[in-house]
Amino acid sequence: MKAVLITIGDEILSGNTVDTNSNFIANHLKDIGIPVVQIFTISDTLDTIKKTLQTAFEIGDIIITTGGLGPTKDDKTKIAFAEFFNDELVLDDGTFDHLRKLFIKRNREHLLEINRNQAVVLSKAIIFQNENGSAPCQMIEENGKVTICLPGVPYEVKPLIKDKIIPFLKNKFSLNHIESQIISVVNFPESLLALTIEDWELALPNNISLSYLPIGNRVKLRLTATGNDLKELKNQLQQESEKLKPLIGEKVISWNGNEIQEILKELLIEKKLTLSTAESCTGGELTRLITSVSGSSSYFLGGIIPYDYHKKIEILGVSEKTISEKTAVSAEVAQEMSLGSLKLFHTDISLSTTGVSGPNSDEFNNEIGTVFYSIRVKDFEKTNRLFLPHLERNDFANFVSQRVLQDLIEILIQEKF
Amino acid sequence: MKAVLITIGDEILSGNTVDTNSNFIANHLKDIGIPVVQIFTISDTLDTIKKTLQTAFEIGDIIITTGGLGPTKDDKTKIAFAEFFNDELVLDDGTFDHLRKLFIKRNREHLLEINRNQAVVLSKAIIFQNENGSAPCQMIEENGKVTICLPGVPYEVKPLIKDKIIPFLKNKFSLNHIESQIISVVNFPESLLALTIEDWELALPNNISLSYLPIGNRVKLRLTATGNDLKELKNQLQQESEKLKPLIGEKVISWNGNEIQEILKELLIEKKLTLSTAESCTGGELTRLITSVSGSSSYFLGGIIPYDYHKKIEILGVSEKTISEKTAVSAEVAQEMSLGSLKLFHTDISLSTTGVSGPNSDEFNNEIGTVFYSIRVKDFEKTNRLFLPHLERNDFANFVSQRVLQDLIEILIQEKF
Repeated sequence: MKAVLITIGDEILSGNTVDTNSNFIANHLKDIGIPVVQIFTISDTLDTIKKTLQTAFEIGDIIITTGGLGPTKDDKTKIAFAEFFNDELVLDDGTFDHLRKLFIKRNREHLLEINRNQAVVLSKAIIFQNENGSAPCQMIEENGKVTICLPGVPYEVKPLIKDKIIPFLKNKFSLNHIESQIISVVNFPESLLALTIEDWELALPNNISLSYLPIGNRVKLRLTATGNDLKELKNQLQQESEKLKPLIGEKVISWNGNEIQEILKELLIEKKLTLSTAESCTGGELTRLITSVSGSSSYFLGGIIPYDYHKKIEILGVSEKTISEKTAVSAEVAQEMSLGSLKLFHTDISLSTTGVSGPNSDEFNNEIGTVFYSIRVKDFEKTNRLFLPHLERNDFANFVSQRVLQDLIEILIQEKF
Repeated sequence: MKAVLITIGDEILSGNTVDTNSNFIANHLKDIGIPVVQIFTISDTLDTIKKTLQTAFEIGDIIITTGGLGPTKDDKTKIAFAEFFNDELVLDDGTFDHLRKLFIKRNREHLLEINRNQAVVLSKAIIFQNENGSAPCQMIEENGKVTICLPGVPYEVKPLIKDKIIPFLKNKFSLNHIESQIISVVNFPESLLALTIEDWELALPNNISLSYLPIGNRVKLRLTATGNDLKELKNQLQQESEKLKPLIGEKVISWNGNEIQEILKELLIEKKLTLSTAESCTGGELTRLITSVSGSSSYFLGGIIPYDYHKKIEILGVSEKTISEKTAVSAEVAQEMSLGSLKLFHTDISLSTTGVSGPNSDEFNNEIGTVFYSIRVKDFEKTNRLFLPHLERNDFANFVSQRVLQDLIEILIQEKF
């Protein structure tokens, strides 16, 4: 059972919008054992849509399209579907009724007639109503293959996938399981890592595949096992990762975790430690990463972003002398910021960042790409410097934040807090 | 001149990584007048790569691939290229020399032999050296079509595209210009908007296309004009947007801006106003959005994220009585937070958020999805409530943050600060 995704519309192709739908859908399909084998991102034109549906039918069993269902003139998807499936478009009473209720709820009943066209669907389709927008989800089955046509807005796509499509597919097909395990290795260059575990990799069972995903100076080894016995898959992964322990154990910071903030969560809860942040050059990204994990409020107490350097002095107690002697981008200021954060929020751990993300230099003429960060765990302190002149502003904030959390994890493991 | 992008590797298909490279490349190609007409995301297998190259050659003039160039066993791209172009892979001395310098700089000279394979390239290729990784960029020209093969890591892709590929393409082809203008309309449902400007849309010149991009309760109208005279294109867009003023002028918050934080920047600099934030449920996302704009340090002075409710009391001066009577998620607490932020950072404007993003409720048992936010501009204050139970944690933070900034912009325009 293989899936093909088709993203329709010019928003992605023009570079206006990053495609996050495909990532979400692929993740959820993977969880029920359906791999996505290809993604097509195409423009909203009749011929292209029909031609791509044809190709998708040749390589996949489940075809999921997103986008091209708006009420405006630039959306052609429904017509393309009708032509491709040799079907006609009809007004569906159930959908119109659903639309009416949605519009009453939003105090937009006067708009109903204009949006009547949104209740026009393929006559052969099974309809999944959309609780968050006016375009319903349509499902067509033909020659044992399933085609699902979704709107494009991520806020609408995600609940439809999670609450309606996944349960439907799970119920319809008896599927193979896919089980993954991600092992995080740090301070071990990818090529040397590959050489170190080469024999192990070559001896992996046929139903297990391995990928290397480098991110900063962490390499994620992803083991993916496929089969019909979930318990057996878990056993297999357990056995294979055990074999890795003597080879790379010392460089592993997590034996099963994807995002660095999730790995941190487990550690902090286990060790009952609280955390705070004082960010400058990361501008909120470090705190956003930490709080992106559900349940983070049990260990993350607060953060401050003293963007203007006077605020570093006034709120965090950084000394004016240090700033005038060393500038705001210095090891000393990073250290005073983390100390200030520890005191302000009364936490066990504090993290601070200060740097110049560019594209312009700061008022002290520090070199673009320079960062200092300080990590405090109770009485322990570590300062580090990075130089990342080639990174764009947002990548810079994310890279630094990921690195700070990764270093904190290493410290928590090595120093045995 | 049309471009096709091919993203190679299982990271995207498996849902492990969001594809940000395509967005970056599409944006930069658009700037030099090359539209991306299709994106293929495929697995790293010989047959699929070769077949997709074939299809891409049929629809595009410039083909850009990313990914599949790592030193590990799961990468097959180079072999597929050699077979497709009927070429052979040879060790390139210049690339090996570049690699040596890179490894010396990183104190990894001992790894050079293992990575020797990264200097093996297609014999017909022109090489663009990669300053941030071990896989070079290769360019092959055949039958007037250009194929460019890039690594997959975004930190490596972006500088290669910006500093090497775009200048190369610009120099090589004399290209048409593409000029875009984005008009942001708020509080105007897409369907009603479409009806209101229908006659105008139908009368647009052939070389101008229109897209509707809804984001929250803002609709971005993107006008894209193509032609060989840049000045003339700008004139055309100017004329067409002038015609819209009597139709929808009152609902427009920006006549030319894409991201809400960029629109805000212009306003704040023009009006010489400073800004601070006090975030709870948005967890840093609001501040990250604001600081994602270069130059934001001239108006954004600082932010605080008092995640634990005791910190709202201790640092922001929210009253304990208000919290015990109204809970931390209430209009009153939002108002006291924005007041506290105004005082703490001494700014003209402050923004606050408090809510329950889920998936779990808070310690006060407030309903998941509830948010209050407060906007202060000097003596003016406005509080708003949103209810977003269907949004995932990160979407929730982003949606609320976008909305707060949008409301602030409306206030700055309407209240004439």
